[in-house]
Amino acid sequence: MKTKKPAESVTQMTYMVLPNQTNTLNNLMGGELLNWMDITAAIAAGRHCNRVVVTASVDSVDFQSPIRLGEIVVVEAKVSRAFNTSVEVHLKVFAENQMTGLRRTCNEAFFTFVAIDQAGHPLPVNKLEPVTDEEKSLYESALARREARLAAAKKKETQ
Amino acid sequence: MKTKKPAESVTQMTYMVLPNQTNTLNNLMGGELLNWMDITAAIAAGRHCNRVVVTASVDSVDFQSPIRLGEIVVVEAKVSRAFNTSVEVHLKVFAENQMTGLRRTCNEAFFTFVAIDQAGHPLPVNKLEPVTDEEKSLYESALARREARLAAAKKKETQ
Amino acid sequence: MKTKKPAESVTQMTYMVLPNQTNTLNNLMGGELLNWMDITAAIAAGRHCNRVVVTASVDSVDFQSPIRLGEIVVVEAKVSRAFNTSVEVHLKVFAENQMTGLRRTCNEAFFTFVAIDQAGHPLPVNKLEPVTDEEKSLYESALARREARLAAAKKKETQ
Amino acid sequence: MKTKKPAESVTQMTYMVLPNQTNTLNNLMGGELLNWMDITAAIAAGRHCNRVVVTASVDSVDFQSPIRLGEIVVVEAKVSRAFNTSVEVHLKVFAENQMTGLRRTCNEAFFTFVAIDQAGHPLPVNKLEPVTDEEKSLYESALARREARLAAAKKKETQ
Amino acid sequence: MKTKKPAESVTQMTYMVLPNQTNTLNNLMGGELLNWMDITAAIAAGRHCNRVVVTASVDSVDFQSPIRLGEIVVVEAKVSRAFNTSVEVHLKVFAENQMTGLRRTCNEAFFTFVAIDQAGHPLPVNKLEPVTDEEKSLYESALARREARLAAAKKKETQ
Amino acid sequence: MKTKKPAESVTQMTYMVLPNQTNTLNNLMGGELLNWMDITAAIAAGRHCNRVVVTASVDSVDFQSPIRLGEIVVVEAKVSRAFNTSVEVHLKVFAENQMTGLRRTCNEAFFTFVAIDQAGHPLPVNKLEPVTDEEKSLYESALARREARLAAAKKKETQ
Repeated sequence: MKTKKPAESVTQMTYMVLPNQTNTLNNLMGGELLNWMDITAAIAAGRHCNRVVVTASVDSVDFQSPIRLGEIVVVEAKVSRAFNTSVEVHLKVFAENQMTGLRRTCNEAFFTFVAIDQAGHPLPVNKLEPVTDEEKSLYESALARREARLAAAKKKETQ
Repeated sequence: MKTKKPAESVTQMTYMVLPNQTNTLNNLMGGELLNWMDITAAIAAGRHCNRVVVTASVDSVDFQSPIRLGEIVVVEAKVSRAFNTSVEVHLKVFAENQMTGLRRTCNEAFFTFVAIDQAGHPLPVNKLEPVTDEEKSLYESALARREARLAAAKKKETQ
Repeated sequence: MKTKKPAESVTQMTYMVLPNQTNTLNNLMGGELLNWMDITAAIAAGRHCNRVVVTASVDSVDFQSPIRLGEIVVVEAKVSRAFNTSVEVHLKVFAENQMTGLRRTCNEAFFTFVAIDQAGHPLPVNKLEPVTDEEKSLYESALARREARLAAAKKKETQ
Repeated sequence: MKTKKPAESVTQMTYMVLPNQTNTLNNLMGGELLNWMDITAAIAAGRHCNRVVVTASVDSVDFQSPIRLGEIVVVEAKVSRAFNTSVEVHLKVFAENQMTGLRRTCNEAFFTFVAIDQAGHPLPVNKLEPVTDEEKSLYESALARREARLAAAKKKETQ
Repeated sequence: MKTKKPAESVTQMTYMVLPNQTNTLNNLMGGELLNWMDITAAIAAGRHCNRVVVTASVDSVDFQSPIRLGEIVVVEAKVSRAFNTSVEVHLKVFAENQMTGLRRTCNEAFFTFVAIDQAGHPLPVNKLEPVTDEEKSLYESALARREARLAAAKKKETQ
Repeated sequence: MKTKKPAESVTQMTYMVLPNQTNTLNNLMGGELLNWMDITAAIAAGRHCNRVVVTASVDSVDFQSPIRLGEIVVVEAKVSRAFNTSVEVHLKVFAENQMTGLRRTCNEAFFTFVAIDQAGHPLPVNKLEPVTDEEKSLYESALARREARLAAAKKKETQ
């Protein structure tokens, strides 16, 4: 097991919104963006763990700023905390208009991933050591988000 | 404005998991499933609203039961509550093994959608009248989920 | 070998017509629809047989009602008769306009599938017991369709 | 209106079978092949008509020779007869194994297309003048196939 | 090892430009065309070698004639010279407007491929014997192109 | 017209190699990589020009290091020189093995793009001011590459 820094897992994807990814009013469909976010986060998690990882959960996501056909979408992911066999990944989504060059923040989200072996059993993962202030803050608040996830999962089970 | 029943928006999609949708251990990738869930829920919302709808938010989703290459995935969506200009959609995801015929529940989730006009402005939507006990229960609990979403959105803004 | 009812193989797929699936006049291309029909029918056949199945034949299909960009397409498949190593699947295709909510029937078709093992050899399949009047009628008429298929195949061979 | 020869509409497509186009036993799925056949035939019909065309019908298709992952598929289409506002296209499908170089015939089929204007109304099409013996034979037999299609369509209507 | 003629590797692909393959001004994107050229050339190389081949290099390509949404693209590939373990493939790209039927030449290019075994080691390939004047001319000039490639590769290494 | 720095156009894309993008020996196909390079470079060019751009030419590309199924591919693009109505973009391609975390350089290439208006006419583009030593070196050497492109284009014309 190694100890890694968040910078070692930074992953960036840049896309151009194409017609098949939009609804009839030319807005990017939410599920398409969720798919891009999952792939980017999975690569970040894989870079931290050096293992095959699978998505364990997605925290709630808001879609406040519609993204238009032809706009550029940037998805950035970085591991925010490592637990025993899982990691939490922090995501930011930006959109850019190519004509004006203006960039706006669209989404922020947390995905968690579990490292698994060929039989699907969880494997221990590398530790994370936050460096910047933002990384330290996300590292600390990860515990509360983990609590909330466990509580929500428990509530679903008992329903 | 009409008043509709949940049964009028029921939408079902059935997929077969193909190689490009799996990781190197042959498990369906989470983002692919989120994308299928969003499309199914968007069609259910569109059927209720008779309008173009856009994804407004996704509540947290757990991925507890891995789905394998070649398995059949069934996504079912039904509007659980209508608000002024938005609807909440309830989703259930099942997986089936073709050889055994066994079906298992994989996920449950809530997506919300806003009905918009060509300029992107919200539009009033049809009312919902729940009929079955499960529909009535989901209709009632939708208010608490809405509160939680608004609280979470507020918290993000002030961060 | 089991005896199954048609209801056990019912498969439904719901799609939204996207730009890449239409011609330059915004009509869904016929081959795209045939592909959706084949996948839906193959899942229905697999559910009846609990085996890997391959398409053996497609009866003639008419495309009388054009389907437009943005419309919803519903494909429904159900096994109509089981033979020794093959099944016939009955398909219905509907299209819906999201704004009006009106649904129209677009196509009806019959696909046949053969159950095979890893070496590609045919395998015996579960029997079918029709229940409703429509199921019984399709079950009876399946013999005449089978005769017509064999006659057509023979004619091609001797050409 | 012009009179054209079948050679002017000859269209050939060559594909390599990829993982996403096969079932779990690595055979090309029938619907994928039908889709390729429809696109190839539509281009042939468009070349003859110099108009946008839409698929009107597909005659029955047999899938007797399974095509494997990694094999090369060749689809050839040529207009076999022109009617007032529609054309019949004759298709041949071949598969090649890249290692042995052997080519085998897999399918033969007839698709019909209608030329339409922007409002979807049928438009008159160029005439066809067959040249080779095979073209003349297909041209002659097209009338019987057309009769069979009209009879089948009538039968469906009265059901 | 056999000696083959260029005609034995001729490969033709015909495509229709769809919305997802164009930029916001409805022109086919260059990378999409490069991808089609690579697949067509790889099939031609595979037909000559009867082996799995991998792209080794692409000579410079100009995009002088924009291709529009809905136009037909024809890519033709033919092996122009065989070396010890590699082949050079000559490509021509044409575009057709379906309404006018006019065809224009868009691109010409050379791709090289190496035949490999399962461990990725190069394998000897069949010899090529040019027949027509154009084939002989391309065969002769292939040596100069090969020199230029080796010189360019050397220059990159020493940078 | 503005003067921009190369850093303002830096674009990064990160991909995971999926089954449909590989040949039967599980190596990424060259055309797929060329397509990713073109999209990344086009976004970089669009960010510099704030205009719709189209690919004008691709300089020769070598594929020396095979990339495997499941590996991570990083494509980085940055404008290296602006001319009157076109820009040259410099590309670097890296591959990473997720298990070892090792990254290797796979390709380097130059693509050129032209900024166009809705009628397809070239438009003047923003100027470029290189900052780092590598940027200055690429800016200087761009003239020689441009000469070579013009010479090659001229040679093709006179053939």
